[in-house]
Amino acid sequence: MKPRQLAAAIAFGLTVCAAPAAELTRIPADALATAAQLRERAANDTAAYDFVAGLTTEVGQRLAGGANDQRGRDWVAARFKALGFDKVWTEPVTYPRWVRRAEHADIAAPFAQPLAVSALGNSPGTPKGGVRGEVVLFKDFKALQAASEASVKGRIVYIAYHMHAERDGHDYGPATAGRTGGPALAAKLGALAFVLRSAGSDSDRLPHTGVTAFPPKAPQVPAAALSNPDADLLERMIAGGKPVMLHLDLDCGIDGTFTGANVIGQVTGSEHPDEIIDIGGHLDSWDPGTGAIDDGAGVAIAAGAAHLISTLPQRPKRSIRVVAFANEEAGMIGGKAYAAAHKDEIAKHILGAESDFGAGRVWRLTSKVKPEALGAIDQIMQALGPLGVERGANGTAHGGDFGALGEAGMALLDLNQDGTRYFDWHHTANDTLDKIDAKDLNQNVAAYAVFAYLAAQAEGDFGSAPVATPPKKTE
Amino acid sequence: MKPRQLAAAIAFGLTVCAAPAAELTRIPADALATAAQLRERAANDTAAYDFVAGLTTEVGQRLAGGANDQRGRDWVAARFKALGFDKVWTEPVTYPRWVRRAEHADIAAPFAQPLAVSALGNSPGTPKGGVRGEVVLFKDFKALQAASEASVKGRIVYIAYHMHAERDGHDYGPATAGRTGGPALAAKLGALAFVLRSAGSDSDRLPHTGVTAFPPKAPQVPAAALSNPDADLLERMIAGGKPVMLHLDLDCGIDGTFTGANVIGQVTGSEHPDEIIDIGGHLDSWDPGTGAIDDGAGVAIAAGAAHLISTLPQRPKRSIRVVAFANEEAGMIGGKAYAAAHKDEIAKHILGAESDFGAGRVWRLTSKVKPEALGAIDQIMQALGPLGVERGANGTAHGGDFGALGEAGMALLDLNQDGTRYFDWHHTANDTLDKIDAKDLNQNVAAYAVFAYLAAQAEGDFGSAPVATPPKKTE
Repeated sequence: MKPRQLAAAIAFGLTVCAAPAAELTRIPADALATAAQLRERAANDTAAYDFVAGLTTEVGQRLAGGANDQRGRDWVAARFKALGFDKVWTEPVTYPRWVRRAEHADIAAPFAQPLAVSALGNSPGTPKGGVRGEVVLFKDFKALQAASEASVKGRIVYIAYHMHAERDGHDYGPATAGRTGGPALAAKLGALAFVLRSAGSDSDRLPHTGVTAFPPKAPQVPAAALSNPDADLLERMIAGGKPVMLHLDLDCGIDGTFTGANVIGQVTGSEHPDEIIDIGGHLDSWDPGTGAIDDGAGVAIAAGAAHLISTLPQRPKRSIRVVAFANEEAGMIGGKAYAAAHKDEIAKHILGAESDFGAGRVWRLTSKVKPEALGAIDQIMQALGPLGVERGANGTAHGGDFGALGEAGMALLDLNQDGTRYFDWHHTANDTLDKIDAKDLNQNVAAYAVFAYLAAQAEGDFGSAPVATPPKKTE
Repeated sequence: MKPRQLAAAIAFGLTVCAAPAAELTRIPADALATAAQLRERAANDTAAYDFVAGLTTEVGQRLAGGANDQRGRDWVAARFKALGFDKVWTEPVTYPRWVRRAEHADIAAPFAQPLAVSALGNSPGTPKGGVRGEVVLFKDFKALQAASEASVKGRIVYIAYHMHAERDGHDYGPATAGRTGGPALAAKLGALAFVLRSAGSDSDRLPHTGVTAFPPKAPQVPAAALSNPDADLLERMIAGGKPVMLHLDLDCGIDGTFTGANVIGQVTGSEHPDEIIDIGGHLDSWDPGTGAIDDGAGVAIAAGAAHLISTLPQRPKRSIRVVAFANEEAGMIGGKAYAAAHKDEIAKHILGAESDFGAGRVWRLTSKVKPEALGAIDQIMQALGPLGVERGANGTAHGGDFGALGEAGMALLDLNQDGTRYFDWHHTANDTLDKIDAKDLNQNVAAYAVFAYLAAQAEGDFGSAPVATPPKKTE
């Protein structure tokens, strides 16, 4: 047993005493007992499911800067109030307004076939009538990076990377390398346009949209994703050996800037109201679906957990804050705005965790907390035990939209969800309420309620403190 | 043991003798040995998969009367020739030409949301700009049949029947009762339009189209299917209690008549070339997908089986005929034309079986043969044994597109396929090649090759004979 563990063990043994070792964060026994009640009550609570059902039914898709951006915020603010949160407010977030008007693709030769296609966020449109060009296939982004200008110039670049389903979604990174960086590189090499096989693990004729990025003032090309069956079709034609001519017609692009907002609801603490446990999800969604799993579920889980805590006879010691972030999809813009607005109060943002991986069960908890708080995390793990949550490594939590505040020094948890089916539906028209299992959703509510409550009751903090260097600017 | 079974048992015992009881159909032992070879060789044969891959890649969707009707026929005729069939020809089939140009639906109130919608075949279009009306929900077709004119008049009828997946697809009948009869009844009751929950067992945002029917000179309304997630959304709004206003805009309708054709390929018999074993599938498909499982697979299975038989050192005794039917989707019009063209040669059409239930494994064989041929069917069952095929009842085979010739007296088999996933994809954009498992497809090829070859070699027939009453006209 290492000295730190020994100290922690002593602290645990002393949970009924008034003065544990000052440097170790600990959670009192009565808080653990209350957390166990919250965990059991979450199983039959309807607040989170009602939240995501209402949001997807009464608002639907919430493309940042689109017609439903304001509608979504109004809906959430009203629901936060209806849930009895002590304080509900918004904080403005400004971002480019990308608009999707129409999209079409077809193979013109050697065999005419329509294709199911979705423009990527930030893609410019094609000239009216579209572009036509020969397709040049690259197996992945790396292959495009190795390509000569001569092989690409005047052609339509296609990246064929085929993503597979994994519980932790680790194949999404390789799949999105091409989506994020491919269009800019294709443009630099003189391509006419860019298409890729969807970053998705399904076999449905529903393309997966998602954001791409162009450096400032760099050349741009129209960019879009094909559904997996359409990508199969294209590849079969390419394998046939004859030149394959693609026609891509996108009416989309950036149309000025838009000011939306992060919507925030708070259950205010009874002893340390200015100390905050931050939980949340992002309110914006892509437009083909209704933003159920990405990320209505995340906001609903956080709201459901905070609501459950708010029904206790007493308010928690610290405040529980639910943040419904603006425009995560274009690059965590709401998260960065939240960090910019709150970077001077880092030490008061005790612990943060965002839910943004669907509505599958939480199977693992990772953390980024100070060593002295690891004993308290172990206590939280004990309370999460009946939910089937494994302990992941400390130092590896990312925080999602709270990541920017995390870079500024906030302590973080990640409650990793089972994402085996997440990328079947993510960023497609299939992101609808029926993909959410109410029981699995409530397992998430239980996990968030347990950790948020215990963090709110903890004696001592989790290590949030300003870092020497300011957070990196990644925009 | 019943007398017939006793007689059959005797016949089996005498399969090596020259003269079995005259009235019992029997299959010689050498044919059974050859069938076993065909069965084994089918497992690694590529003809069927290459067929359906080629058809879906090089032609794609084959809506009857559409641009690909001719392209599809040309492709199949060329492939039949390339497969070495002895004779390839077409027989004309004329049908109304239904055209889909554009389709759109959205909920206008209480919460604006777009809907994924697909017009039903034979549906008229809406006036330009669409129709708008309050939705009235019926849980199934029976409920609509019980409805008063007052409850329907001026409204948009919605049938909510939710189809479930079954191996034998038996929930498709109840699901399509509303699709087939609902629009005409809604029109008769004064409705503005008709929509239904898709006749499909998936949760994808891809509506299932399919045919509807209006009696001659009866009133018509525009009719369409919503995807299952869109039907869920509509029903949640209806459950909310406020009037739900739907906007349906369909540009589609009948545009004259069209003459297509059944495409026929034959492996001509060595002893009885005018005696025919009829196998096949239908060549037309709905237009959202590429007609892979419905029914490129069926034509491919039959073509693959006939091709396999054609590679034997000797032609079979009887002819094996592969029929790629025209326009099954609008009501087995190609099958009826085939029956009309061949009704005077019923006794020469020894046995027929169509594959039109996807590409899942054959799990059961049902028949409609004379009692004296049941022993031969038992012999076929024995040869199919290693493929895991169960024996179903005699007298229950329907014959699909061969059903019309069956009504005229032709003996039939049904090789029932596992349809557990069939209605996830059927009549949607998801009807694409990736839904076909090559091994399962080849199990079908094995089953068709075995039965067709054994029927071609059988001594005696299966009971095909003109019936006293002519086939019913169901058009």
